[in-house]
Formats: sequence, structure tokens, C-alpha cells
Amino acid sequence: MTTGVWLIGARGSVAVTSMVGATALRAGLAEPLGCVTELPQLAGAALPGWGELVFGGHDISDITLEKKVEDLVAAGVLPARPAAAVADQLPALQKELRPVPVAATQLEVTRLIAQDIDDFRRQRGLSRVVVVNVSSTEPLFSCDRPLAGLQDDLASPGVVLPPSSLYAYAAFTAGCPYVDFTPSTGARLPALRELAARAGLPYAGHDGKTGETLVKSVLAPMFAMRNLRVRTWSGTNLLGGGDGANLADPARNAAKASSKQRVLAETLGYQPQGSTHIEYVDDIGDFKTAWDLVTFSGFLGTRMRMEFSWHGCDSALAAPLVLDLARITAAAHAAGRSGPLTELAFFFKDPLGDVPHDLAGQWAALAGFVRGLHAPA
Amino acid sequence: MTTGVWLIGARGSVAVTSMVGATALRAGLAEPLGCVTELPQLAGAALPGWGELVFGGHDISDITLEKKVEDLVAAGVLPARPAAAVADQLPALQKELRPVPVAATQLEVTRLIAQDIDDFRRQRGLSRVVVVNVSSTEPLFSCDRPLAGLQDDLASPGVVLPPSSLYAYAAFTAGCPYVDFTPSTGARLPALRELAARAGLPYAGHDGKTGETLVKSVLAPMFAMRNLRVRTWSGTNLLGGGDGANLADPARNAAKASSKQRVLAETLGYQPQGSTHIEYVDDIGDFKTAWDLVTFSGFLGTRMRMEFSWHGCDSALAAPLVLDLARITAAAHAAGRSGPLTELAFFFKDPLGDVPHDLAGQWAALAGFVRGLHAPA
Amino acid sequence: MTTGVWLIGARGSVAVTSMVGATALRAGLAEPLGCVTELPQLAGAALPGWGELVFGGHDISDITLEKKVEDLVAAGVLPARPAAAVADQLPALQKELRPVPVAATQLEVTRLIAQDIDDFRRQRGLSRVVVVNVSSTEPLFSCDRPLAGLQDDLASPGVVLPPSSLYAYAAFTAGCPYVDFTPSTGARLPALRELAARAGLPYAGHDGKTGETLVKSVLAPMFAMRNLRVRTWSGTNLLGGGDGANLADPARNAAKASSKQRVLAETLGYQPQGSTHIEYVDDIGDFKTAWDLVTFSGFLGTRMRMEFSWHGCDSALAAPLVLDLARITAAAHAAGRSGPLTELAFFFKDPLGDVPHDLAGQWAALAGFVRGLHAPA
Amino acid sequence: MTTGVWLIGARGSVAVTSMVGATALRAGLAEPLGCVTELPQLAGAALPGWGELVFGGHDISDITLEKKVEDLVAAGVLPARPAAAVADQLPALQKELRPVPVAATQLEVTRLIAQDIDDFRRQRGLSRVVVVNVSSTEPLFSCDRPLAGLQDDLASPGVVLPPSSLYAYAAFTAGCPYVDFTPSTGARLPALRELAARAGLPYAGHDGKTGETLVKSVLAPMFAMRNLRVRTWSGTNLLGGGDGANLADPARNAAKASSKQRVLAETLGYQPQGSTHIEYVDDIGDFKTAWDLVTFSGFLGTRMRMEFSWHGCDSALAAPLVLDLARITAAAHAAGRSGPLTELAFFFKDPLGDVPHDLAGQWAALAGFVRGLHAPA
Repeated sequence: MTTGVWLIGARGSVAVTSMVGATALRAGLAEPLGCVTELPQLAGAALPGWGELVFGGHDISDITLEKKVEDLVAAGVLPARPAAAVADQLPALQKELRPVPVAATQLEVTRLIAQDIDDFRRQRGLSRVVVVNVSSTEPLFSCDRPLAGLQDDLASPGVVLPPSSLYAYAAFTAGCPYVDFTPSTGARLPALRELAARAGLPYAGHDGKTGETLVKSVLAPMFAMRNLRVRTWSGTNLLGGGDGANLADPARNAAKASSKQRVLAETLGYQPQGSTHIEYVDDIGDFKTAWDLVTFSGFLGTRMRMEFSWHGCDSALAAPLVLDLARITAAAHAAGRSGPLTELAFFFKDPLGDVPHDLAGQWAALAGFVRGLHAPA
Repeated sequence: MTTGVWLIGARGSVAVTSMVGATALRAGLAEPLGCVTELPQLAGAALPGWGELVFGGHDISDITLEKKVEDLVAAGVLPARPAAAVADQLPALQKELRPVPVAATQLEVTRLIAQDIDDFRRQRGLSRVVVVNVSSTEPLFSCDRPLAGLQDDLASPGVVLPPSSLYAYAAFTAGCPYVDFTPSTGARLPALRELAARAGLPYAGHDGKTGETLVKSVLAPMFAMRNLRVRTWSGTNLLGGGDGANLADPARNAAKASSKQRVLAETLGYQPQGSTHIEYVDDIGDFKTAWDLVTFSGFLGTRMRMEFSWHGCDSALAAPLVLDLARITAAAHAAGRSGPLTELAFFFKDPLGDVPHDLAGQWAALAGFVRGLHAPA
Repeated sequence: MTTGVWLIGARGSVAVTSMVGATALRAGLAEPLGCVTELPQLAGAALPGWGELVFGGHDISDITLEKKVEDLVAAGVLPARPAAAVADQLPALQKELRPVPVAATQLEVTRLIAQDIDDFRRQRGLSRVVVVNVSSTEPLFSCDRPLAGLQDDLASPGVVLPPSSLYAYAAFTAGCPYVDFTPSTGARLPALRELAARAGLPYAGHDGKTGETLVKSVLAPMFAMRNLRVRTWSGTNLLGGGDGANLADPARNAAKASSKQRVLAETLGYQPQGSTHIEYVDDIGDFKTAWDLVTFSGFLGTRMRMEFSWHGCDSALAAPLVLDLARITAAAHAAGRSGPLTELAFFFKDPLGDVPHDLAGQWAALAGFVRGLHAPA
Repeated sequence: MTTGVWLIGARGSVAVTSMVGATALRAGLAEPLGCVTELPQLAGAALPGWGELVFGGHDISDITLEKKVEDLVAAGVLPARPAAAVADQLPALQKELRPVPVAATQLEVTRLIAQDIDDFRRQRGLSRVVVVNVSSTEPLFSCDRPLAGLQDDLASPGVVLPPSSLYAYAAFTAGCPYVDFTPSTGARLPALRELAARAGLPYAGHDGKTGETLVKSVLAPMFAMRNLRVRTWSGTNLLGGGDGANLADPARNAAKASSKQRVLAETLGYQPQGSTHIEYVDDIGDFKTAWDLVTFSGFLGTRMRMEFSWHGCDSALAAPLVLDLARITAAAHAAGRSGPLTELAFFFKDPLGDVPHDLAGQWAALAGFVRGLHAPA
């Protein structure tokens, strides 16, 4: 079951780490750390193997993979040894990367995107292609137009949809499942849900849960299970790199920060005081530091506190989850699942559907879902 | 269903906070924060209500409850308002506290302890009495003597068992369930298990999970669920107060530190490098500070780290759990359960039986168990 | 040498903590912790004693001192014991507090303020009165008008100056030294400097250095002395209370945040990346938590990092410095000093003049200055 | 003024980082970050330049420099680029490294050591050689024998002195200044002081101040200058690598921990509660993490706290100081200074003599001393 993984933002840190990593894993150059689908509870024949994943994608940047890998090694994101070992495969990977198409209307753009993806599928003889958005975070956007109206709008000149939604539109018209690893709008519009439903395609999102929110998703349930009242929860995220620069824009920052606090209200049942602050510090690069302060009341109102610092490499945390999502979504597509894959909430800060927000509950849902995919028909 | 709670170490911080707190809760002076049995998933008719709990206990100290409450208020453990509101009930509570009996043999001591408990049960007209050990941590101890041999030994002069085990022996002979909230030996001896089995009595333990280990029991599973390899996990606990002074003794410290690391191997499946260090700093008192450093490897071996500081009031965290354990164990006894209550692992650092060590798994087991107690026979 | 201390914002947390504290110190109820003027290097006969300080002030609030003290005790800012011991002196203190005068022009307002201060001086038979601004932070403001022009403007209706500058104006016309403990404009206008110079009056400021910036003023020099290159320095301040709510206003926040970063450029010789973020979290109250992350490069460029968390009670840190500043400024006035007291940089985040910004250098300057005041004429 | 630097422990991390670093600095491959002698306040003609330093040394290990450099690069201690750039000079450096001599008596061993050093001086035509001990920490040792007696003892078979003292003895008999960068005994014996005095040689020590203690030496004075009472100061150091393994030995650990707490009593004037804990965690390697908790009381006794984490690369922090010490000690020797160089306290945790322990005071003393060396005779 050869599976295409079509990355939106294919020359960015997360995408390149994913591609290089998958290549290294296929060659047995590294252990599959960080890959959830390698855990015994999830592993199985339904998921495409490392050797069955084929990569391609779009990007507005034209940085070469060689240069990007060099940068990632210098920044400590990619270890030097596996990076060197796969260097000879970068030209082949690079051949599958396309510039973002330009056209008179957004509808025409989606047609060209879909054609790129379809060409990739046919030329490489793939069973299916999963489209994964790992491009920059966009400002919040909403639009309630039904599908028919939206298609009319797209056929006229002018900007109707943000890129993440254009890609979702294109993926669905090309018959591909779509995964949004960012907080951008992506498939989260009524018209796109309608399009996916008509095409019988699954999709997943939003916003990969890699660091601070991951920790929140186990600590907040801990306070809830112990009936400790969380009074305040304040977080600061310092990060550089492309994602950081992008999040320095207040509108995009708002999209992210709101996504990051949702877990608290959902698992605690109330919203404590405090907010999540994201700050761009260029020099920090990909090794984000998050610091959170939690104050809480216990027996008879006694006040206590906890702090944590998380020092994680964002791309190294994201890349294996991108691979996991591609594998599981491909298997779900193969098994005929369609619509929002709410059972994949484990991977996301801002999951689709009315789902558990505690990590343990999400894990149980995920394990059950993947077990179902492995079960003989 | 009036239920007695017989506290070993009844004039210590945890016991006094428990008694004062239960009195305040009964009077509606405070919300039941920290009490797990008040959560909707556990609450129900099978558990004795706050108004149905009656306290008594043994202690080697003769500090008055008035003085102890004054100290706890000064230290910020007990808030001033509820403490003042229940001041007039301290004399009545105090009347039920007994000095530790003295006798020529340990067997005779257990008989006198059992008689104290039995007097308490009869005079107060209690349905049952749950004995809860909240006294100081003892050094590690083990003894493989079968019950018959042990009884012979106890009948001779000399020290055969540590106090926690003597109290367990006495509880069982008095027909009472026994809960060990400390890392001491307590009921963890083959002879005592035999005694409990013969008497058809339930028991629970060991070592209340109040702070650092509680956090570990959600963070370690998080790393496991994400297939992140924990390389090192080192913890430092700074604490003063009675428990701190006691743990400054290397032998007792060893009992505690070993109890605190068990969760890692159990939830990760391997033992990362690093250890747990406990240090007595008198001035820090009951507001323990724990600091943990976790280093881990992710995708392609990239190294990352996390730190947390926990600043919690030990007695305020422990007391509601003591009340929870008394309520649940009483209900279990009423329902005819006997032997080790392994479903109560949620409360303990070093739980009995082959049980889950992740907090979410323990919570599910606990909720199921309590639901069974509430179910009509 | 009886000395008046006239507090602007006299019913606020810092002012009330200062007054209650001075009263307690006079009565020998507490050690003078936090009071720099009690250190052997600064103590001496030139400074007014605790028994020689008399308090008064203005405030727009009409909260009673009794209520304010009750709030401060509940919040843990004022310990209960000394607060209770001075309760009987609150009515006398309260009698010296005045509402903020209202008039048709700001010039008339300054006249009424000056008159209040003068009445206080005459009625209490004071040698002098030091005016200290401990009111809320104002937005940044600047104005280059010379004194004559400014006086014309003030005589017309309309708002010309912010309150802190009006008080400075009034203080100088009343012949009083002026200390600005806040980041507000205060005496930092050419016209006011001219006014102080003509009146031969000393003044000091700006922005009491109580927590995070205090720590920065020793850590930044440490990096400089070791030739370690600070790459980034990012700070987050979480605080509630009146000052916090006030700083939630972006304009006032800017005044404070800029004041807090100045020490880095001044002591390092360059400005590292990163900024200081202030966030209002009501529930945190006066016990501010600051967290700073510093990343730096050492030998051959090796990257390292340091984090600190500061959990300090703002009012308890500020109040003794207010008393120190009142004592030293009074002695400077008595000794005939006038103009900006640049030697008091030790106390401030954003000190006047071209002065050292490392704490040790500031300490040496302060000690030399105070020694000069103690020296016989 | 060509100057030899003879390193005891010459194949260890600190020594190799020093040699590689000096080679890279000489070639202009890196900025001299971390080198205090490059700051404008200390730089000058009296100090030997990078091109004038020539390295040699003893070690009990026979690891090749090539292998050691490879390990240091893999561990992130040495950046890959400068390490690669100096690779061709490693064989020449290696030729000057000697195994530790073996002989029937310790006196004979010192004679052989001195001869190795003297050969190095003559063969390389050096003006002088500074001997610097950067070998493993030894257990505490003391011995009050006068010089004459000690020499008799050394002439008999058996172990009389620890290695650090043997090297000091040898250095002095070879006419070389001696610097002890470790907490070991080194020259701190009456007999060795006598020997140095007779030979008119300077010496310096003890225990390079690279991380946690450096921070303490600015924070403790900050608390003192603000009259804040430090109640507790507890530190935990987690480290791996050779130094870490060595410090896992309780006797050596004691030497280090005692050296690390001295700064508190010296700068505060009293000893707060708490201690410094050192723990060996192999996997952490050279990137030590120290965590300190400081609790303190301020105005009216209000309790506050501060925490810091220091994540520094020990060898990268130590190496430039080793070079600084070699340069300054060489210049002091050239200028005819002899005896303990107490003005170098800035560099040490446990400095010689009755000197300031606050970093700013130490810096002033150092700058004055070096200025004196630069002054024309």
C-alpha cells in the first residue's frame, strides 16, 4: 500500500524533518522515537510501513532541501549523523516539490493544486495521497457560505479563502484525505465539510499538540481528578524560527493562544484566570521554551502552586506526529472512513468534535480506533 | 452508618488537619476541595457522610489539639477562619485520643490497642471503625514468619514488629479495616495478610500520593504515550516539619525515596537514570518544594528537557485523601470486601498489587470500584 | 529632626504597608528587615529615626485604613501580629490623609496640594516634609515647555500635566524634596528640574527596584564580568492587585516594561534579544511571580542558559525602600543637597543621571553618599 | 614572553577544551568569549598573548587527543567547526603530554615530575611554566608536618601526599607557579606554603567558580545589600561526565559541597539553613544542571522565595578561566610576585586568604591587581 504524503509547506522545518526522518527510519538509521504508531498498542499491518511512504508537496519558498537540512543540523534540530546518511536522497525528494500555483481566480488555483497532487499520485503509482498542512499559521478566519455559494465566489477574482482552506478544497476535489497540523482554518468551514462528506473523505486537525499543551493535557486532568481548584494558569512561550516570527503577528498569535487555552476549560470544567502568551525571540530558534505557572487551592482553601519549564525542539516533536497522522489517516481512508476523524484528538491542541481533552482519554480513543483499522474486515 | 476513623499519629499535622477539616466540612464552613469522594464520579449513598464520621486515635505525643491547631494556623496549613470556627469542638475531639499503651510484650500491646478501639466503637455506637496510619515513617523492615510463629514471638518480651505493623495486627484482631497512608511496613507482612484474610477484612496502602509522585504519575505516562525516551529523571524534595525531620534519617529516607521512584519503571517500562533525593530543611515546614528535572530523547534522538517545581502543603494535600480513604474503606467493609483493596492505587505512591501506575488508569479503576459499592446489592 | 513623609497614593498597598511598618518598627514589634538604612554601612545620626517620622498624604480613594489593613492581612502582605498591635494608631494616621483637591485649573490644584502639605508641616511642627509618589503608574508623557510657559498653560483650564508631575510641582513650590517611586513622569520634565533648581531642592527617582529588575542588576553584571555573551533575556511578570490591574493598560505597561529592560543595555553594553512582559492576573494579588530566561554563549560559542523565578510580595519589598528613601532624602535636604540625587540609583529601576546600573556599583555610590551626610559639617 | 602551561589532567575535558580553544583563538577562529583577560579592564601587554602560550602536561589516562576531541564534539562541549579547524595541530599538542611517573618513593615521583616540566621548559625555550591542576577532585586531606619532616616522609616508601599536593611540590621545586583549579588539597599545606615562600613563587586556588557558586556570589550579596534575611538556601547539582562520576564518591563530594556553601556565610554574615547536594547522573554529561531554592524574609517578616536553574557546560565555562589564570599567574611571576595570589579570588569557589566573597568586590580586587602588573616597573 504505497502512500503519498503531500506536505503543504514542504520546505519548512517540520516538513523537512519529517521527510529526512522517514528516510532515516526506512534505512534503519535511527530508532522511531516520538512515533506513536510504533508503540505496541498502535502498531500493525493496516498502517503503511516506513518504506511505503512517498513524499511530495508545495511551498512558496524555494530554499533547497540541501540548504534547509544544513540549517536544521546547525540548529541542532536534525542530528548530524542521520542527516549526512540521507544526503544522497535529497535530490530525489526535491524533485517532488512544487511551487505554489498562481492563477486568475482561487478556483483555478485549487484546480492546479489538485492537478499537482494527482500527477504525483499517478506518476508514483500511489494507492492514495494524504495531504498534510504544516505551513505557517494564518490569522483567524471564518465564513459561513454554503458550498455552492463558495464555489461561485472562488470563480471570481479576489481572495475568498486563506491558503489552508484552498489546500483543503483542492485535496478533497483530488480525492485525498486532509490533515491540518496547524491552527489555521483549513477544512473547518461548513462548505468544506460538505465537500468532504460528498467525496466520502476523512480529515483531521487542528494544531499539533507538541509541547506546552501536551503537558497541560495531563496536568489539568490531574488537578480535576484530585478535586483541586485551579485558580490561575499562565503560560509564556518563547520561540524563534519561522513559526515564531510568524506568531509575532498579533492576529496569528491570537489563533494559536486561543487554541492553547482550550484544554483547560474542557478538562477542568471552568476557565481559570490567566492566559497563554507567545513571544518571538529569533535567537531561540526551534528550541522553544515554555514556562507555566499554576496556582491552585486545596483542602480548606490552602493555596499552592506549581511551575514547569518545557524546553523542546518543536520540529523534532512535530515531525513524528506528522508521520503518525499520515499513516493512520491513510489506513482510515483505506478502511473507508470519512468525515472528521475525532478519534485522533490525541494529536491536536484544538481537536475536531466533542471529544475528551485529557491525554489518557484521547489515548484510549486513539488506540481503539487504530485497533479497529487493524481488525480484519 | 456512623463510622469511626481511628488515626495512628492522631496529634500529628495530617491527622489534626483531617479532623478539623471534617468538622468544618460538616458545618458547611468550607468547600470540600481536595476530597476526591465529592467528585460526581465517586459521590453516592454508599459512602458515609461528613456528619457520620467520628474520630479517635492513638499518639505518643501529648500535645493538645488546641496547641497543634494554633501551630498549623501559624504555619499556614490551616486557614484561620475555619480553625477558629471549630475551636469549641476540639475538647470533644480530644477526649477520644489515647496514649500509646505500654506492656511487657508486644502481643499484650496489641491487645490493649484493640481494646481502645473496641471501647471507642461501643461507646460511640459505631457501625465500624477504619484504622488509618498517619504516623511517622519507619525504617524499612521485613519478616517472613508465618502467623503462628509470629504470634509466639510477640508473646515473648522484646521488639518483634515495628509500630505500624503492631497497629495493623491490633486493627485486624479488633475486626477493623486498616489503611496505611505512610511508606511504613504496616500490613505488608505475610502473617498480617493471613490475619486479615482469616478475619475477612479489607486493607489499603501504601504511602499517600500527594505531590511530586502525583505529578510523576501523569507525566511519565505522557512520555510513554508519545514514545519519547526518558533518559534521566532526578528529583529533589525539600521539606521541614515533623515528617521532614524524620526523613532526615537515612534509613527512613530510603523507604520513602524508593517508594517515590517506583512509578517510573512501572509506567515507562524501564528505569531512567537519576534518583529522588529528600532533604530536611526545618524552616521550610509543611510547604514542601519538590523540583524535578526530566531529560528525554525524541525524533532521531534529539535531546530535550523539562523541569517542574511543586510547592504544596503536605498536610493540606494529605488530609482530604485520608478522609476519602476512610469513607471508601468503610463502604468496602460494609459491602463485604476483604483483602488488599488494589483498586485504591489512585491514592498511593506504592500501591498494593499488580495495578496500573498511571493516574488515569488508577482513576478508572477507582471509579469502577466505588460505582460497584454504590450499586444496590 | 522630626520629618514628615507625605505619600501620594496614601491609601494604597505600598503606602499603608510603609506607615503600618514604620509604626511597628518604632514600637519595636519587628526587626527592620528590608530597610537598607539599618545596615551598618548606612546607619547613623544624620538620618531621622523611626520615632521621628510623621506620615500624611493624598489619595483619590477613600478606603479607610482599617479596611485596607484588613485586606493586606488577608492577602498575606501584612503579618497579622504587627498589624493588630498598631490597630489603635490607625485613626491618628488617618486624620492626616487628604482627598485630592479639585479646582478650575491645574495651577490652582497644585496650590491646594502645596497648602495641604504646608498645613501638615506647620501643624505637626516638622523640620521638613519629603513627598513620595507611590500612586498608580501613569502612561508615558513628555513635555518640553520651559517653566514660564508651563506655568501659563497650567493657569488655563484643561489637563496639562499628569498627576505625578502636578505633585512634583506642588512639592517644589511648597519647599519639599520629592521622590518618585513609580515609573511615572513626576519631576522628569525640564520645567520641573528648573523649578527644583531654583528652590534648591533635591529629588530622586524613578521606579522602585524591588524584584525582577533587582535580580537583573546583579546577574547582568555577572555575565559581563565573565565575558559571557547574553543572547536573549526574556521576562514574564504575573501580578494582580491594584498595580497589576493598572499595568494591564498597554500604555502604562509600556512605561514599566521599558524601565525594566534598561539595566541590560546599561550593564552589558549591548541589548540582547527578548523583552519584558507584564500580565495582570487578578487572583495572584500582591505576590508577584516573575520568570526570566537568559540564554548566553561562552567559550568557542557554546550555548548555555539560566532561568529564575522570583516570588516576592511587591508591597513588602517596596515599603522599606520608601522609608529608606524618605530618611535619606530628608538628611540630604538637611545637608543642603539639591538637584537630582543620582547617588540613590541603588533604589531605582530607571535611575536619574549617568550612573552605574550594576547593583554593587550603585551600593558603593549610595554608601559613599550617606557617609557624607553623616560626616560632621 | 613565551609561556608554558603545564596541565595536570591534560587529557581531561577541561584541559583539552583549554588547549583546543587556545589554538582556535590564536588562529582567530573564534571570539574569546568567556575569557576575562580579554575584557578591556584586564587586557594589556603584561599578559602573554594567545600566540605565546605553549601547552604540555601529565595524565594517568592514555586516551588520544583525537578521541577526546571527538567525544567533546559529540557531547556538544566543543563546537564542530573550530574543533575540525585545529585537528591538524593535535599531534603536536599530544607530543607534549607525559604519563604520570612511577617510582619507589613519592619524593622520587616529584623529582621525575619536576624533570618532565623542566625538560618541557628547556626544549621549548619558555620564559616560564605555570602548572595548573585540572585533574579529578580528591577526598579531603590534611597534614600539619613542617617541610623538613614532610621531606623525610616522602623519601620513605608509602603514600604520604595526595597527587594534587605532589604536583604542587614538584612545581615549586621546578621553580614554577602553581594554580589549583580543583577543590583538592594542592598547595594548601603548611609545608608547601613554606616551600613556595622559599622559592619565591606565586600560587593560586581553589576550585574554579564556574556555575552555581558564581550565581550565588552575586545573589547572596544582593540579599545582604537589601537587608533581606535569607532563611534557607538549598542547591542540587546534577552532572555526569568524569567529574560527576568522581563526585559520586561521598568523600570527594564532601570536599566540593563544602567549598560551594562557603560563599553564603562569607557574604551574608550568617549561615542559612540548607545544603548543597551533588548527584551523579551519567547521561547528563558535561551540561550540568543546578537548581537552587532560596527562601527569605522581608519587611515585617513577610516570606518570599526565589528559584534558579543553571544549565551550563562545565568544561566550556572552566577552560577560558584556566587560560586566564595561566596568563595572569605568568605575568605575576614575571613581575616578581610570590605567595598566595589572593587577588584572584574572582576565579575560585574557595579562594585563598581573607578576601571578599562577593563577585563585584572580587572583580575590583582582580582589576586592580592586573592593572598593577601592566604598570611600567
